[in-house]
Amino acid sequence: MKEIRILIIFAWVLIINIWAMAQNEETDMETFTIVIHGGAGTILKKNMTPEKELAYRNKLREALTAGYSILDGGGSSIDAVETAIIIMEDSPLFNAGKGSVFTNDGKNEMDASIMDGKTRNAGAVAMVNTIKNPISAARAVMEKSPHVMMVGEGAVKFSKEQGLEIVDSSYFYDEKRWQQWQNIKGSIEFELDHSEDRAGKTQREFDAEFNNEMDKKFGTVGVVALDKNGNIAAGTSTGGMTNKMYGRVGDSPIIGAGTYANNKTCGVSSTGHGEYFIRYVVAYDISAIMEHKGFSLQEAADEVIHKKLKEMGGTGGIIAVDSHGNFSLTFNTEGMYRGSMIKGGKPVISIYKD
Amino acid sequence: MKEIRILIIFAWVLIINIWAMAQNEETDMETFTIVIHGGAGTILKKNMTPEKELAYRNKLREALTAGYSILDGGGSSIDAVETAIIIMEDSPLFNAGKGSVFTNDGKNEMDASIMDGKTRNAGAVAMVNTIKNPISAARAVMEKSPHVMMVGEGAVKFSKEQGLEIVDSSYFYDEKRWQQWQNIKGSIEFELDHSEDRAGKTQREFDAEFNNEMDKKFGTVGVVALDKNGNIAAGTSTGGMTNKMYGRVGDSPIIGAGTYANNKTCGVSSTGHGEYFIRYVVAYDISAIMEHKGFSLQEAADEVIHKKLKEMGGTGGIIAVDSHGNFSLTFNTEGMYRGSMIKGGKPVISIYKD
Repeated sequence: MKEIRILIIFAWVLIINIWAMAQNEETDMETFTIVIHGGAGTILKKNMTPEKELAYRNKLREALTAGYSILDGGGSSIDAVETAIIIMEDSPLFNAGKGSVFTNDGKNEMDASIMDGKTRNAGAVAMVNTIKNPISAARAVMEKSPHVMMVGEGAVKFSKEQGLEIVDSSYFYDEKRWQQWQNIKGSIEFELDHSEDRAGKTQREFDAEFNNEMDKKFGTVGVVALDKNGNIAAGTSTGGMTNKMYGRVGDSPIIGAGTYANNKTCGVSSTGHGEYFIRYVVAYDISAIMEHKGFSLQEAADEVIHKKLKEMGGTGGIIAVDSHGNFSLTFNTEGMYRGSMIKGGKPVISIYKD
Repeated sequence: MKEIRILIIFAWVLIINIWAMAQNEETDMETFTIVIHGGAGTILKKNMTPEKELAYRNKLREALTAGYSILDGGGSSIDAVETAIIIMEDSPLFNAGKGSVFTNDGKNEMDASIMDGKTRNAGAVAMVNTIKNPISAARAVMEKSPHVMMVGEGAVKFSKEQGLEIVDSSYFYDEKRWQQWQNIKGSIEFELDHSEDRAGKTQREFDAEFNNEMDKKFGTVGVVALDKNGNIAAGTSTGGMTNKMYGRVGDSPIIGAGTYANNKTCGVSSTGHGEYFIRYVVAYDISAIMEHKGFSLQEAADEVIHKKLKEMGGTGGIIAVDSHGNFSLTFNTEGMYRGSMIKGGKPVISIYKD
């Protein structure tokens, strides 16, 4: 009798455990998350009108929920990332696609990259001008070519052949951006300084002087998502730097710096002072710290953004999602246009610090 | 009496210890090392003539000893890296500078990058055509601009303004390279395949088919050095891919993939199938594994080249030097043109496996 009672209890414990495991597995398999950014920098409430703030919030929400719907319907994280980025590229609010700033020659030069955490395939384009949606070009490079990165005219030619939408350069003309460029044009702010002042200064000292200005003129959009199948994807797109010269390319099209994704760890999209993000291999470093040191996503993001980068004077932030659907929106600037949406949750949009 | 004897023994032990420490410090401070590569791939003795092999060995030795002399004279690792790479860029033997291969349009498009392990400043150029020594352009970007990467015409314009030597495109004309291009031209080997065969293939499968061919046509030069002041530098330069289309850029100008340096860990220059080196952030990963997991340089190099990369079908190799002057020449291909020279040692040049 005693043995039977023990056996019954044992069986019950077993059943409960199996049920709990099944629940866990189901939860894990079905979890999905999407996060989004529209650039980090000196974004202060006092400089923002209520109308402008509302416009940003609405567009971020639109992009976020469009990506969410794809994930909710069982779609892939790559599709969610591309769709959400296209919405931001098509808006003049963000420095990407339609809203891209002007180079020194009054042209637009855009960069984008995307990475698939399942296969760790990646694609990137840099210095492209007439492609309506650079993020789709990056995806085409990843999926339809044996390469990872294509630059300039060659990248545009490839995109045309892949049937992507090519637009006249007037498409990128935006009155506000044009005025912004006219105001800066002729100033030395983003020209290289050939005066004696430059001599003897380290890259860091030189950069530090421009940090405040750069904050206002850098801008990037990015999306990271985990889908129901446990696949992580990340993408980043930018219109570059107002008045930039010399074909400068920042971190956005650089796999490891601006974008990284690995199903085993996390997906990351960066925004900020791109030179620092390249030198500190920011996006990959967060993944590497998780993989090598066993840090959580937030611990790894804090280590890179609040310690490593900050100590060297590098400003900016990241958005990231790990394989369990945890996310991080971490920045060391005054603000970052950002949003997050977890399974069954509401879209959460923020702009300023705390 | 006994106390005095103990005191004397104690004093002796102290003196010996202090002397040993001083020796160690001196050795550590004065150690220097330089390593060099001229590309990895399917390099087999049976395909090599004695004359060709001798030519490669002599040029590698010339570059290696030139860099060594700078280090021996107390010069910086950055100077040693630039000087040694220039010698290889100026030789038609290597696919960099003068020996660069032809693109689909019969042009040359070169990439280079350099990084300073002390400041972790970095510079890179991509898709440049008329700059005689792309590695010097990369160094100018690092030292004379607030940027890390410049691409195409803008990079050439900047290099001109910095007084770097600009040459006519005929400078890069080399009968052997031209014939190589003529032989490949029109073939689909490096064109993207628009046929149905391409559909449904993963990047990995597609790449694998071309690996053998790519081995023969990829090529890069690189140098890593540790100077007497404990500063590590790394640099990489390439002439790209024969018959390449679409403005493809490989890992050579990508900080973290083709080049990385950090005095705390190591300096690395990569060569091989660039797409894999970008996706696996190879150069930085070796440093990260040392930093995060406490691996030795060789353990970290083995982990990345013989495990991570090999499992995914990525072919190539790296050269690296750590902060103690240890070096690693690690590759998973049939051969790698390579050389090493430690303080007081002789130049050691190798080509094939073992």
